[in-house]
Amino acid sequence: MPSDVLVSEPVHTQVKGVMLRRLPSVHDLRGMLSFCEIDSHVPFSVRRYFVVSAVAGDASRGAHAHRTLHQFLTCVHGRCHVIADDGESRQEFVLDNPSLGLHVPPLVWSTQYRYSPGAVLLVLASDVYDEADYIRDYDQFLQLARAR
Amino acid sequence: MPSDVLVSEPVHTQVKGVMLRRLPSVHDLRGMLSFCEIDSHVPFSVRRYFVVSAVAGDASRGAHAHRTLHQFLTCVHGRCHVIADDGESRQEFVLDNPSLGLHVPPLVWSTQYRYSPGAVLLVLASDVYDEADYIRDYDQFLQLARAR
Repeated sequence: MPSDVLVSEPVHTQVKGVMLRRLPSVHDLRGMLSFCEIDSHVPFSVRRYFVVSAVAGDASRGAHAHRTLHQFLTCVHGRCHVIADDGESRQEFVLDNPSLGLHVPPLVWSTQYRYSPGAVLLVLASDVYDEADYIRDYDQFLQLARAR
Repeated sequence: MPSDVLVSEPVHTQVKGVMLRRLPSVHDLRGMLSFCEIDSHVPFSVRRYFVVSAVAGDASRGAHAHRTLHQFLTCVHGRCHVIADDGESRQEFVLDNPSLGLHVPPLVWSTQYRYSPGAVLLVLASDVYDEADYIRDYDQFLQLARAR
């Protein structure tokens, strides 16, 4: 993980449109509070969120892309790995802190795996669920990603 | 916890304006996914979220009300207790599941405590942070709450 993710500006990655974002946090005797102001830290309006938990360590989730949906991933407990792939470049990220967010835009193939015991992944999404927005076939994804 | 929180309609509580909301969830071999569609499940637009973690079991947080801010609380890992108080009625809630949300409107005094080890509280908020929106004095809160 590059050290410059510690600054508050979004950090470009090797994958087109995928950005890492360090969110502010406050530590005190009562615990830790990480916060995210949508207009400042998330490049879309949040219309849905989902929480993934109780994932077996050898299970993987995701393995699809979206046509139009933006997502913002943060691991709020434990740790998981995310592989993001724009059809040309692929990069692996370790999400292990509520103050580290990953923006995954449309037309990026994303897989989450290596969940630690008790890991909880929070995903903010730019729209409600729509099965028609999913691209579940990798070859079709490559065609669409390379044609953009 | 009344059994009718299992239905998907919001459940009124003894505290004015405070509602419990059962969020949908999907369990399968890969784990559990709980989701929340903002327009359907949360009675405000989300402009901020914060994540509270690493709270000692004997610590309490909150102990204030807001003038205008709406919040939606869900414990996405572990368990915590929330006391909500409208100045006349007070009720304690146990949040122990990502699929259970608690809407706390303005002019409700709220305290969170009894965090289990590793508990993570996710709070959606209707606005960005504004210290002037906080009511930190309980007597002042009572005056404002009873005058509404």
